[in-house]
Amino acid sequence: MPPSDPHDDAQQVMAANKAAVSRALNLVEDRRPEAQTGVTKLLAELKDAPKAAGGHRVGLTGPPGVGKSTLTSALARSVRQRGRTVGVVAIDPSSIRSGGSLLGDRARMSFDPSDEGLFVRSLATAGVVGGLAYAANSAVRVLAAAYDMVVIETTGVGQSEIDIVHVADTVVLVIQPGSGDVLQFLKAGIMEIPDILVVNKADHDELAQRAVSDLRGALQTAHAVGAGSGQDVNWETPILATSATQGTGIEELIDTLDEHRQHLDATLAGRRRQGEVQWTLDLFSRKHGEHGVSTLGGLAQLKARAERDLDGGQTPLSLCERLSREYVTALGKTP
Amino acid sequence: MPPSDPHDDAQQVMAANKAAVSRALNLVEDRRPEAQTGVTKLLAELKDAPKAAGGHRVGLTGPPGVGKSTLTSALARSVRQRGRTVGVVAIDPSSIRSGGSLLGDRARMSFDPSDEGLFVRSLATAGVVGGLAYAANSAVRVLAAAYDMVVIETTGVGQSEIDIVHVADTVVLVIQPGSGDVLQFLKAGIMEIPDILVVNKADHDELAQRAVSDLRGALQTAHAVGAGSGQDVNWETPILATSATQGTGIEELIDTLDEHRQHLDATLAGRRRQGEVQWTLDLFSRKHGEHGVSTLGGLAQLKARAERDLDGGQTPLSLCERLSREYVTALGKTP
Repeated sequence: MPPSDPHDDAQQVMAANKAAVSRALNLVEDRRPEAQTGVTKLLAELKDAPKAAGGHRVGLTGPPGVGKSTLTSALARSVRQRGRTVGVVAIDPSSIRSGGSLLGDRARMSFDPSDEGLFVRSLATAGVVGGLAYAANSAVRVLAAAYDMVVIETTGVGQSEIDIVHVADTVVLVIQPGSGDVLQFLKAGIMEIPDILVVNKADHDELAQRAVSDLRGALQTAHAVGAGSGQDVNWETPILATSATQGTGIEELIDTLDEHRQHLDATLAGRRRQGEVQWTLDLFSRKHGEHGVSTLGGLAQLKARAERDLDGGQTPLSLCERLSREYVTALGKTP
Repeated sequence: MPPSDPHDDAQQVMAANKAAVSRALNLVEDRRPEAQTGVTKLLAELKDAPKAAGGHRVGLTGPPGVGKSTLTSALARSVRQRGRTVGVVAIDPSSIRSGGSLLGDRARMSFDPSDEGLFVRSLATAGVVGGLAYAANSAVRVLAAAYDMVVIETTGVGQSEIDIVHVADTVVLVIQPGSGDVLQFLKAGIMEIPDILVVNKADHDELAQRAVSDLRGALQTAHAVGAGSGQDVNWETPILATSATQGTGIEELIDTLDEHRQHLDATLAGRRRQGEVQWTLDLFSRKHGEHGVSTLGGLAQLKARAERDLDGGQTPLSLCERLSREYVTALGKTP
């Protein structure tokens, strides 16, 4: 295979060439240094992709077993029917522990492979601590350059889902009737309040109704204990009921997603920039730890620096490389 | 206040002097460099505390709202009645997000303050990423030097609880009837299988019975998907029902804890050593990141090194300081 040219690759990704998108994601998953240099170059080329600015990055999260994959399929199909293109990246966490995968789940995600406007990829985070922050962030940038809507599907409850806030424009928390633990996490203020709440598997009217009203109560408690203080005060989290298997509630979900995307319009650039600042800090912290952060002046100073340099045209990956060189140089100077 | 002497402080901690234990935990919570130097010295003095070797470190974890604090109180009271001393460290995660605390929960933990054989401390992990690994590890070493049983109480579901495995001899997962999300995490193999499972709030016979049988099913699925492969194959996770408020099931829980402690006897030193190796690697990774790990030869080599040096008398804290010096020196040499 001849060495690829980042500029050409980027052009093909932006043209939503499926093979090119697939190659780009292979590169993202490849943790060898030379591959990562390639990713840095590619993302620099994709930085101002026209699709990305107008697109929508939707994070879909919740505990295992609530039907996120089925919901993602149903959502993607309906968005396609509205004439928009969709890229899906599913983070499979089960492989972290057992080496097994939720193939049963994944298999339920059924798509038409001949559809050029739909791309689906499962990212295994096997063994990589903080794998989501690393690979998903890059994967989302690739897909956002190619498709109108990007869906990031991930499993989690509690603090494991902090990352999704930094990578998605809209965070959708999916639960099912009987997800009592999630309610408790919300109530305790341990879990961020999502932008949209979905009760899936709402086939039984009574149980679903109960779950919706439980959630409404939990949200009130969460607000009362001071959770969501960093949240958007002008957006009241809607609670929707869906049945992904029966296809009910999906159109309403898309309408609500569109509403939130419109609601964000004025603040979206700032929200995404904060996500990039966080990604930069995460990358640098993972690479050089607390000592790296303190050597370069501490977290607050690094944050201000990241805001400035990202405004100046750096990407999180290129900026992290630059910071890394500065750190190693600084250490070399202190005896 | 005159500067304290680590040797004297350690003697007083080992004598279970409550004021000394309290001072030691203040030091652990104090993140200033001079305090941390003090912790390093103190833990070196406590390394071979006679109490520690024979003691029992119990981790009590589960989602919020299942009554962990009430159960901890009931457990501690009953253990005291059996003539053993108890130290409790409760990790309060709610403060990470909202700045609020689960004071309602904490207040329900009622103890006799005049009891010299019982010590309770709540550790706020506010704003500290990986706070559990950092402060709880040290706090447990202090309490283990002073009391027969140490209980580490922490909130979590899914991957947030990996740490507890490294700090506790016995991991108890507490749920309540209706904790469907935890069941899903177990089934998916995302959550480690605990040593003991407790269904608390088992006041209603039928619901509790149902929860116990659901758990039994979840454990079977978890084993089937290959979770718990790192677990002890000679120990079958018992499932107990308790009602902390009514005080039922507590004696059985203590008996089961004692059984597991006896079961561990031959392997306990090795299990604790692995926990210390992990703590060392966590400390060093947090401080110097992936670059630090790779500069010192990679994770496998660092692990072997930690095993050797901990056998040679280092503590995780002192070893991390030594590794840190080696790393900075190594960087200074490469131009």
